[in-house]
Amino acid sequence: MTINWIAADWGTTNLRLWAMSGRKPVEARSSDQGMGGLAPDQFAPALARATEGWPAVPVIACGMVGSRQGWIEAPYAPVPCAATPRLVALPGDPGGRPVRVVCGIRQDSPADVMRGEETQIAGLLALEPDFDGIACLPGTHTKWVRISAGEICNFVSFMTGEIFALLSRQSVLRHSLGEGQGDPAAFRTALSDAMSRPERGYAGLFQLRAESLLSGLDPSAARGRLSGTLIGWELAAARPWWLGSQVTVIGAPALADLYVDALAAQGVPAARMSATDATLAGLAAAHRRFQEE
Amino acid sequence: MTINWIAADWGTTNLRLWAMSGRKPVEARSSDQGMGGLAPDQFAPALARATEGWPAVPVIACGMVGSRQGWIEAPYAPVPCAATPRLVALPGDPGGRPVRVVCGIRQDSPADVMRGEETQIAGLLALEPDFDGIACLPGTHTKWVRISAGEICNFVSFMTGEIFALLSRQSVLRHSLGEGQGDPAAFRTALSDAMSRPERGYAGLFQLRAESLLSGLDPSAARGRLSGTLIGWELAAARPWWLGSQVTVIGAPALADLYVDALAAQGVPAARMSATDATLAGLAAAHRRFQEE
Repeated sequence: MTINWIAADWGTTNLRLWAMSGRKPVEARSSDQGMGGLAPDQFAPALARATEGWPAVPVIACGMVGSRQGWIEAPYAPVPCAATPRLVALPGDPGGRPVRVVCGIRQDSPADVMRGEETQIAGLLALEPDFDGIACLPGTHTKWVRISAGEICNFVSFMTGEIFALLSRQSVLRHSLGEGQGDPAAFRTALSDAMSRPERGYAGLFQLRAESLLSGLDPSAARGRLSGTLIGWELAAARPWWLGSQVTVIGAPALADLYVDALAAQGVPAARMSATDATLAGLAAAHRRFQEE
Repeated sequence: MTINWIAADWGTTNLRLWAMSGRKPVEARSSDQGMGGLAPDQFAPALARATEGWPAVPVIACGMVGSRQGWIEAPYAPVPCAATPRLVALPGDPGGRPVRVVCGIRQDSPADVMRGEETQIAGLLALEPDFDGIACLPGTHTKWVRISAGEICNFVSFMTGEIFALLSRQSVLRHSLGEGQGDPAAFRTALSDAMSRPERGYAGLFQLRAESLLSGLDPSAARGRLSGTLIGWELAAARPWWLGSQVTVIGAPALADLYVDALAAQGVPAARMSATDATLAGLAAAHRRFQEE
């Protein structure tokens, strides 16, 4: 199979690359050369190293590489907008390859931004052209996105993933939480409590530490309760997004499981899509746009 | 004035010491030799260095120095209990000085613990023997404590201070928040929103970042909104503690101001007490207990 373009998911902490033949990945590579660790003049050499041995074909990149602190600032397109990717070109074809970066999307009121998720949404619509409903993209900053008639209508972001990471790794709770997924029963109870009485979940946070000290709370139960509490707050706030809607969850498997489970507990049977499949389909849609330039 | 004992507030990050003459501090010292950075065999030398030149008088210490990871584990007394401090003795009078550590307090259901705050409560009751009401002690883990007839009845802890520190210093919001106290008007609006609709505040967190990116949100307003949101969640959860109660806020001045301001907005005129005054009065009460041993 001939490699005719390169797909790049270039986030804050990682760089993932695929040598592509049309819509098919031929070879995948990944590294920790995320944009967060690179100065402006280090992007071109990092890309050259990471794509060594691959032909001089166009590179289509999405993610934080297009932020102000990234390689080139790819402006935000305002909603409502077509889900079709917009591209900006890096001047001078670095490393002999045309490089295009996908633009992010912004919403002015209430203020919100996305960068990277717009590519997964383009992928969702490439794979399911008639999709009409809500895409839920759990991650560091989880997004709920309303999609209709091929357009991104509006969206909202929650810091759930980042708050979970900070509390579980850096707060006093780090001593009390186990690794892995957390106990599912504890997750569901905390989810339900946080949705019906958000303020009770807030009092329950330090309680995890106290129960661990006083009665040896199971670390897996503690982890389930913390993630149930945070996702419960998010679902309570996102109720207008998922209630009575068709929802597709696009994310890493373990995290997407939690959201699908939480939505099922509200009577919402969410569909699933692999984040990698969505990203690759979205970058392929962006590549078709590039070919039309 | 003759120095006849030494008061020590020995927390996780700092060690504060006072050479005392009865209830009067004669000289104050502080260092960064908190218990968090000390191995078990480093406490005695740290205390010897910090008290150099002071006489060989008894030392009364409160705070995390009495935790399992500290110098000696001072067990938790269960509520309800008298607010009078309980002490454990360090064996062998290190450095030629009798050393006593104040015990923490625990609550079995709902599980909760305090270590350090019990000394401030003993101080509150030493300074106001007839106090009957709620002590609010804002800090890393804010405590609300019900006190009646000289007893600690029950209490609840919130992670507000720690969550604010993590979000303002380590999350994506760090780029958008100013230093200092935060805009008071933004604080009050966010407080009121978070109290009436906690889930709306949850959606508002990432919005701080987005408004900062898209419309240059004033960093001081962003800081006020974040602290108003977190304290609003806490006040919503702590409503049964402050509603219709006599409340005294004991804490560092700037933080105590926020809580007094927030309570005033709910129609609760809270009293103030300096955290240092409360700690010293509590340690003095503990010293009297030591003299009765």
